Amino acid sequence: MYFATYILNGQEKIGVLNYGKTRIVDLSKLDVPDSPGTMLDFITSCNDHVIATIKEHLSDESFIKENSTDLAAVTLLAPIPELQRNVICLGLNYREHIQEVTSIIKKDLQEPEAPIYFGKMATRAIGHNGEILSHPEVTKELDYEVELAVIIGKDGTNIPREKAEEHIFGYSVFNDITARDLQRTHKQWIRGKSLDTFTVMGPHIVHKSEIPFPVELDISCKVNGELRQWSNTRHFIFDIPYIISDLSRGFTLRAGDVIATGTPKGVGMGFDPPRYLKSGDIVECSIEKIGTLVNRIK
Amino acid sequence: MYFATYILNGQEKIGVLNYGKTRIVDLSKLDVPDSPGTMLDFITSCNDHVIATIKEHLSDESFIKENSTDLAAVTLLAPIPELQRNVICLGLNYREHIQEVTSIIKKDLQEPEAPIYFGKMATRAIGHNGEILSHPEVTKELDYEVELAVIIGKDGTNIPREKAEEHIFGYSVFNDITARDLQRTHKQWIRGKSLDTFTVMGPHIVHKSEIPFPVELDISCKVNGELRQWSNTRHFIFDIPYIISDLSRGFTLRAGDVIATGTPKGVGMGFDPPRYLKSGDIVECSIEKIGTLVNRIK
Repeated sequence: MYFATYILNGQEKIGVLNYGKTRIVDLSKLDVPDSPGTMLDFITSCNDHVIATIKEHLSDESFIKENSTDLAAVTLLAPIPELQRNVICLGLNYREHIQEVTSIIKKDLQEPEAPIYFGKMATRAIGHNGEILSHPEVTKELDYEVELAVIIGKDGTNIPREKAEEHIFGYSVFNDITARDLQRTHKQWIRGKSLDTFTVMGPHIVHKSEIPFPVELDISCKVNGELRQWSNTRHFIFDIPYIISDLSRGFTLRAGDVIATGTPKGVGMGFDPPRYLKSGDIVECSIEKIGTLVNRIK
Repeated sequence: MYFATYILNGQEKIGVLNYGKTRIVDLSKLDVPDSPGTMLDFITSCNDHVIATIKEHLSDESFIKENSTDLAAVTLLAPIPELQRNVICLGLNYREHIQEVTSIIKKDLQEPEAPIYFGKMATRAIGHNGEILSHPEVTKELDYEVELAVIIGKDGTNIPREKAEEHIFGYSVFNDITARDLQRTHKQWIRGKSLDTFTVMGPHIVHKSEIPFPVELDISCKVNGELRQWSNTRHFIFDIPYIISDLSRGFTLRAGDVIATGTPKGVGMGFDPPRYLKSGDIVECSIEKIGTLVNRIK
């Protein structure tokens, strides 16, 4: 099941894609209790019964025919356009990316003993085909980072590893746009990670029932058609159960929280000379079984 | 004008204190348009006319007599109990605190060339007399940090220094509770700053009209009655206009955002041996003209 937030006739709606991923069904047309208004409401109120109901409707071809819209006729937004709080991101969570950073900063970086978490301010998120601002007055070093986003589906504190999956709602593709110069200058990373339009997610959220656990998916990023990043999420240093269990020690994760799990090797900063993004560039972030998130730099 | 969020007869309300600061008036009893439900709504919708209306009512003694409650009869919450997004905090924004940290980490810390921003996850904020959890399974190094919180009152991007005050709603006292061991272990600071109950603010928000600009206020922190931190906000390395102007370059500040402006010398980590907080300790954070925020460690 692929859930998306979209605009149709000027109205923001949430919907689910048909099996062929060619059409979208307005979730308010299904027998979902309380008819959720936003994806955040939906995630918060979703349960096994709701998922089963949606599945049933998706198998009913005549229902789909009558109640869906051609995907090409709608404008996709980020699946959660207004995040409830900052995205929790991980730094240096793929070994090869650490080697890459080591060669840039010319200082031997050890593999982290604990996850390096940082926050990305909850600015309005940009979705598939949304434009990323290049902020030429603020940064000269605009960079891309493809990441697997985990969307939390159930509140929890002190979640044990083996229960981590229960707290997941689904997954999305995330582009952790970064101003490298600001990231360096301000020491802590939040400033360089939080300019307007730097939170990029989509095209939709895939429900966890579609993705075998543990999550082992090919992940890649192209700039103007050239492959820059590629790896598989099985190469995480800290895997998803570890992250959820570690992060929730003494800290309550909430349904609707987004965790961006770190980026593999191949960021623009890693080239010599660096290959930063510039106006007009097209960035394509892909994750197997989830989809491809395409954005243009304005 | 001192605005507070409080509980009366089991209901969460927002109110304004009388001039004597002995009674509180439910804001819904005033002719404030749209009768705001939460402090966030109020801050977002507030304007000069609303402030003038409230001032008028506060001067009307018989109105106050009829429409207020004894402050001692209500339970204060944090002025903004549910933050709209993470608190934006500054690290190392007082010179003497940098010297203190230098002596702890035994490495010469230069005065930062740019503000060191970091985020504190938007967990439910704890108010005056609220209990701070000590999280003994997660941290052995619980520390206090008194800070001046600036509450943004008007959205803005690329705000020039000289317009910074226009974007401020008011000020509050903030205790940036920190797990030093987590702060160290995870490199980036957010994890050690974001355990449940680590966001402590109150007792109220003082409207900016009460505080001359630039803001030069004595600030202090006591633990069990012993003075640990004291300074004046005139000793900021980066002052409030600089912070608002710098932070808003390419990033939209929103009404309701909270900026914690950094802590002076005297944190528990700075003593030899360190003097961390333990269960039963009472922490009192005070800022001249704003008030005193008292909390017990559970």
